[in-house]
Amino acid sequence: MVQSSVPPVHWTSSTRCMEVQGSVVLQSNLQRRHEVKFTPELLKDDGEAIYEAIAHAPALMLTTPSVDRLYGATLRQVVRRFGHAKPCGYHVLECREDAKDMHQTLKICELALDANLRRGGTIVAIGGGVCLDIAGLASAVYRRGVRHIKVPTTLIGIIDAGIGIKNGVNFQGKKSALGSFYPPELTLLDPAFLRTVPELHIRDGLSEALKIAIVGDRALFELMEANAVTLLPTRLGSTSGHEVIARSVKGMLSALSDNLYELDGYCRMVDFGHTFSPFIESATVYKVTHGQAVAMDMAISATLARQFQLLDEQDFERILQLMHVLGLPIFHESMRETEKLHQSLKSVVAHRDGALNLVVPTGIGTYKFIHQASNVQCQDLESAVTYLEFRHASVRDRRLVC
Amino acid sequence: MVQSSVPPVHWTSSTRCMEVQGSVVLQSNLQRRHEVKFTPELLKDDGEAIYEAIAHAPALMLTTPSVDRLYGATLRQVVRRFGHAKPCGYHVLECREDAKDMHQTLKICELALDANLRRGGTIVAIGGGVCLDIAGLASAVYRRGVRHIKVPTTLIGIIDAGIGIKNGVNFQGKKSALGSFYPPELTLLDPAFLRTVPELHIRDGLSEALKIAIVGDRALFELMEANAVTLLPTRLGSTSGHEVIARSVKGMLSALSDNLYELDGYCRMVDFGHTFSPFIESATVYKVTHGQAVAMDMAISATLARQFQLLDEQDFERILQLMHVLGLPIFHESMRETEKLHQSLKSVVAHRDGALNLVVPTGIGTYKFIHQASNVQCQDLESAVTYLEFRHASVRDRRLVC
Repeated sequence: MVQSSVPPVHWTSSTRCMEVQGSVVLQSNLQRRHEVKFTPELLKDDGEAIYEAIAHAPALMLTTPSVDRLYGATLRQVVRRFGHAKPCGYHVLECREDAKDMHQTLKICELALDANLRRGGTIVAIGGGVCLDIAGLASAVYRRGVRHIKVPTTLIGIIDAGIGIKNGVNFQGKKSALGSFYPPELTLLDPAFLRTVPELHIRDGLSEALKIAIVGDRALFELMEANAVTLLPTRLGSTSGHEVIARSVKGMLSALSDNLYELDGYCRMVDFGHTFSPFIESATVYKVTHGQAVAMDMAISATLARQFQLLDEQDFERILQLMHVLGLPIFHESMRETEKLHQSLKSVVAHRDGALNLVVPTGIGTYKFIHQASNVQCQDLESAVTYLEFRHASVRDRRLVC
Repeated sequence: MVQSSVPPVHWTSSTRCMEVQGSVVLQSNLQRRHEVKFTPELLKDDGEAIYEAIAHAPALMLTTPSVDRLYGATLRQVVRRFGHAKPCGYHVLECREDAKDMHQTLKICELALDANLRRGGTIVAIGGGVCLDIAGLASAVYRRGVRHIKVPTTLIGIIDAGIGIKNGVNFQGKKSALGSFYPPELTLLDPAFLRTVPELHIRDGLSEALKIAIVGDRALFELMEANAVTLLPTRLGSTSGHEVIARSVKGMLSALSDNLYELDGYCRMVDFGHTFSPFIESATVYKVTHGQAVAMDMAISATLARQFQLLDEQDFERILQLMHVLGLPIFHESMRETEKLHQSLKSVVAHRDGALNLVVPTGIGTYKFIHQASNVQCQDLESAVTYLEFRHASVRDRRLVC
């Protein structure tokens, strides 16, 4: 592979070398730039936009079996355009959650090595969360880091997994135990991919959009409310759908930027919906998807907020009503095991270095933390779950009557 | 394992989230601090100094079979002092160059997971280059990065491998193909470890010290000259030996700090001695050690500089004379294959993204780059090698006569 001389220009660094009390201290500052670009119809005109994005450096393009089946012809066309002058590889990866491991990550490194990709090269990942995660970690460790471009193709990827700087793989049964903070050079967002995404996965993404709306963006909440009935069937393909995506992305990035490298503790607004959900996911052996579990967690958190009189009745109703119209679940029978659910908070506390930091809504677009685990008793959870089960059942019964 | 709430405090970050022409851009600054501390007699008083260095956080201590044999009793004593209050693991790793791979790195991650080490924990590595490399990469990817402390126990570790921020493992037969730039929180330097290091390895380290001296530090060169006869037998244990270490460390760190993350191209003063050496190492299947190969490379580079009239006769003689007294080799028969040696520059050029950037001395403590590979012809190399072989043989013959 002949390669041009292109260093990873999106980063710069400066270092001071000082003597301090007999020690030598290197104080370094690494500046990295991550651009998240809205690029509707990325694949039209034989993928001209994606060709341009990678045209400046040799690239290795990675994707998933589904994306390959649907869009492979165009992607391969982009690769062919490079010809011999600027070589570009194309590979389809196994991308199941149970293959999100170091083995798959090293497989990518092997492909990069086979293609003789050098430090100035780019690893491009086009797919869902798993594909982006393993390719992200490979980009971080291959030759001590190469350029990386992410192209998420699912809604959850577009508004969550694909726009952050974290990557991670499962290890020894532990979720995301290995990984890195590695900003991609570029994330390209194209809602057109959603046309071919199954409804269930769109709903998962809507759950993450709603998360941002409830605790951080009243206007987004109202936009989702006004278009609740059409978002799912149109797969966010309308103008308002695109606006939901754009606001969610901006809200998420703005929230992440407060603590991008997670060095400032574990009080994170974006953890809303992510306190009870790990228990629900693991108790159901991941039959309940991440997005569904996040929805149930948001329902529990909102109900706790209502019980603690932190959230008024009207806003509480609006939240649950919008979840209902969006088709987001508020209850699963695994939640009935409230003691176990309560017990599971211990590992959340451990993960957040000693505090619970439960995010609860205090209105539409506002929130507060419940820092101490002792402030959420098992009976609080029991009341919340009982209420949600009752509400869930009555909605179901009404449907049966209809 | 009960753990305290200690985030990786040696890092800070700030991020700006901006809208730029329809894109959202995250511009982040990651500030990291790496302290290199001179701590003579680190293990006296039951390892008090090392205990103090890790006392603030849970730790996993990793070392090599040789270090364990020689210093294991004290290290285990440190671990025992932690008791149950602040748990600390201790493990002996396989540390051969051919085990410097992802398998060993993941083994460390497994040990960390078994010990339930969290993000606030520390991975401490006490050993030579291989041990520091695999532990460094494990520290970078375990839980997306934990604190890391390096304690190099060889001379090459103390003045080179242990004080930089790079780590790397071999992959698919390619040296250091995977790794990261990951500043340790702390490097502890103790020349007392050198008392038990084999003479050959001390010589390897002297080669790297001489590298800094020749191209960057005339005073260090003169210090080495003045103490050339005693440095090796005393294993740098004298005051002047310690001074050689301190100056080499400072020179190396100062050179590294100019381009710590290697984002500013591939013109690096510290590459002196590292252009022809990869060929010599691989042609001899690593029977010639890294330090020896670096010495021969420095001899070739100095001879080329002399041939190109960039270096005067007197300084050239001083360089080769000092190498001779330090017991550093200037010739190996693998160098006779000058065509292959010349060919090997192609891969150096590829590695340095298109330029040779050969560092040659222009005096004692000064250097320049020969950027273009075309400026070093095969016959230049042949002349240099012929001269070095002749000089090597005449020294050997003089020895025989004596």
